[in-house]
Amino acid sequence: MTEFISKIRTIQWIDTYSRMVDQTLFPYEFKYVDIKTGQEMYDAIKNMIVRGAPAIGIAGAHGVVLYAQELKNLNREDFIKKLLEKADYMATSRPTAVNLMWAVEKQKEIIKNSNSNVNGIIEELKQNAIKLENEDIEINKKIGDYGAQIVPEGATILTHCNAGALATVGYGTALGVVRSAFAKDPTVKVFADETRPRQQGARITTLELTMDGIPTTLITDGMCSYFMKKGMINLVVVGADRIAANGDTANKIGTYTVAIAAKYHNIPFYVAAPLSTIDTKIKSGDEIPIEERSHEEVTHINGKSICAKGVNIINPGFDVTPHELITGIITEAGILKPDFNKSIAEAFS
Amino acid sequence: MTEFISKIRTIQWIDTYSRMVDQTLFPYEFKYVDIKTGQEMYDAIKNMIVRGAPAIGIAGAHGVVLYAQELKNLNREDFIKKLLEKADYMATSRPTAVNLMWAVEKQKEIIKNSNSNVNGIIEELKQNAIKLENEDIEINKKIGDYGAQIVPEGATILTHCNAGALATVGYGTALGVVRSAFAKDPTVKVFADETRPRQQGARITTLELTMDGIPTTLITDGMCSYFMKKGMINLVVVGADRIAANGDTANKIGTYTVAIAAKYHNIPFYVAAPLSTIDTKIKSGDEIPIEERSHEEVTHINGKSICAKGVNIINPGFDVTPHELITGIITEAGILKPDFNKSIAEAFS
Repeated sequence: MTEFISKIRTIQWIDTYSRMVDQTLFPYEFKYVDIKTGQEMYDAIKNMIVRGAPAIGIAGAHGVVLYAQELKNLNREDFIKKLLEKADYMATSRPTAVNLMWAVEKQKEIIKNSNSNVNGIIEELKQNAIKLENEDIEINKKIGDYGAQIVPEGATILTHCNAGALATVGYGTALGVVRSAFAKDPTVKVFADETRPRQQGARITTLELTMDGIPTTLITDGMCSYFMKKGMINLVVVGADRIAANGDTANKIGTYTVAIAAKYHNIPFYVAAPLSTIDTKIKSGDEIPIEERSHEEVTHINGKSICAKGVNIINPGFDVTPHELITGIITEAGILKPDFNKSIAEAFS
Repeated sequence: MTEFISKIRTIQWIDTYSRMVDQTLFPYEFKYVDIKTGQEMYDAIKNMIVRGAPAIGIAGAHGVVLYAQELKNLNREDFIKKLLEKADYMATSRPTAVNLMWAVEKQKEIIKNSNSNVNGIIEELKQNAIKLENEDIEINKKIGDYGAQIVPEGATILTHCNAGALATVGYGTALGVVRSAFAKDPTVKVFADETRPRQQGARITTLELTMDGIPTTLITDGMCSYFMKKGMINLVVVGADRIAANGDTANKIGTYTVAIAAKYHNIPFYVAAPLSTIDTKIKSGDEIPIEERSHEEVTHINGKSICAKGVNIINPGFDVTPHELITGIITEAGILKPDFNKSIAEAFS
């Protein structure tokens, strides 16, 4: 298979700090920011300077290294006790994506199991963070290559939000599928949902796909059914923030509406995500906590109000697409098919 | 039934000109603008200073009067010939809403059938425009009162775009149903879809409902399914720009997606519109022309780009909701139910 070369690296550990693309500036600037303390990383995740489930997983792992560096003058016992507390705090910076908890947990295992002294533990945490980074890209390329197999020739792929290189360390999950499909077949095209309220589709997906030369059409969130009915969308591929053991998938608000529209038009609906996004501890999507975000995300765009004063707002950041609307889950271990309870259990065995 | 008093009058003929609320300024200003020539009216309709199918019908009728005043120095034969041409031109200012063609046709009948001299014809056109205005409000109140019968106690009504007082002369069609229901039962509430690209839900619906004291929650277009699944939406009521003889309904882009979501959750989906919105000359929605609007409506909000350069845009202003997704059509002649071919034919007989 032709390898697709992407220009984009979202997050990278550099010697003693974390460098990331500041995603709040899209689409106006593509600028790197260096994060040098644990609290700065907590805020960067919370304020979505870094976003996307796999990317915030890596950011969380970096954050634990940053805290470790800050605590290096403590004795070993206090260092471990304090660092485990800080790691737990880091894991609370956002509630829905399970990758954050997963990556912080990987770092906590090192803290708890290491026989090294403080400096040795810091070095192990750093090496583990770099390993997780590299694995993320490798995993995404596997997801892309498996996913490319289900993309018909000349297909137009609809995606929601941004599950791209900019939601991961690089390459992307849903957009990794797009990249691998496009490498085989340059007639593949993308329709990107704007994805209100935060417009990640408009601000981020259009940016990363046009940077990589992949033809992209931006549509508003309500338009998907119109184009599906016209036969202009051949399949849907989205990312995920958390997948339950039965395949129910939490992803950016609006995903569930797209899944219903796809079902109505008999269009395949795929989720692309690493196994680390699957939370086998929860049976169904009912157990996934949905982050409630600020009202200004709905009422304001670029700092300007778009509605009347005195209107009520409810702003759930995610919704859950029930497993019965999902054609398959594209992972680094292959494409999982219904019955997901069975195929997910097999992937983890 | 308690009569609901609304503060809003969208368009009104005053002596020799047309006064309307400038809807491009919402939600920042509520300002009237006076339209004094036929070409100004053509531009006001095209640029959506006035919008909403019933309101642009009245605007078209006013526009014919304005042209008539401009042509008053011609001899009777030239006056009639030229004015009929100008009326046809006025009817082309927007293509989807049938009310515009309908109202212009009503004026053309007067031009063709009158026995008066030029000044007499102008006076007849003026009186007819005022009659259509008054009828519009009366029709909306009838729609509201019929519609209120299908609103359950304490219901939350989801609406898309703005089919309100500000889409009509006053009171509204879909929001006329809301006003009549609220007059009976002040625990009735509204969820308003933002309605990208032009955000009529955010800019206009939240404004007119909060002005009239009706509790309103603004949601983004992708959120409807989330709230439907949670049981927080009891029914959907939307307006229409054109309804075919079989009940297929063209309305603002995104309506079709809401209708599919409502069907999936077994939530009633109603269209509220005057009989003048029904185009019995066309058999199905396939024959309704869909206006393609400017790319900037998608790529820019408040004059600022929200996406990468080089992205493709397709911007259909409307979509067609097929009759099988529609529970009923609320008109001034009562609530039409499936089979719509039959119930619509009966309403016109």
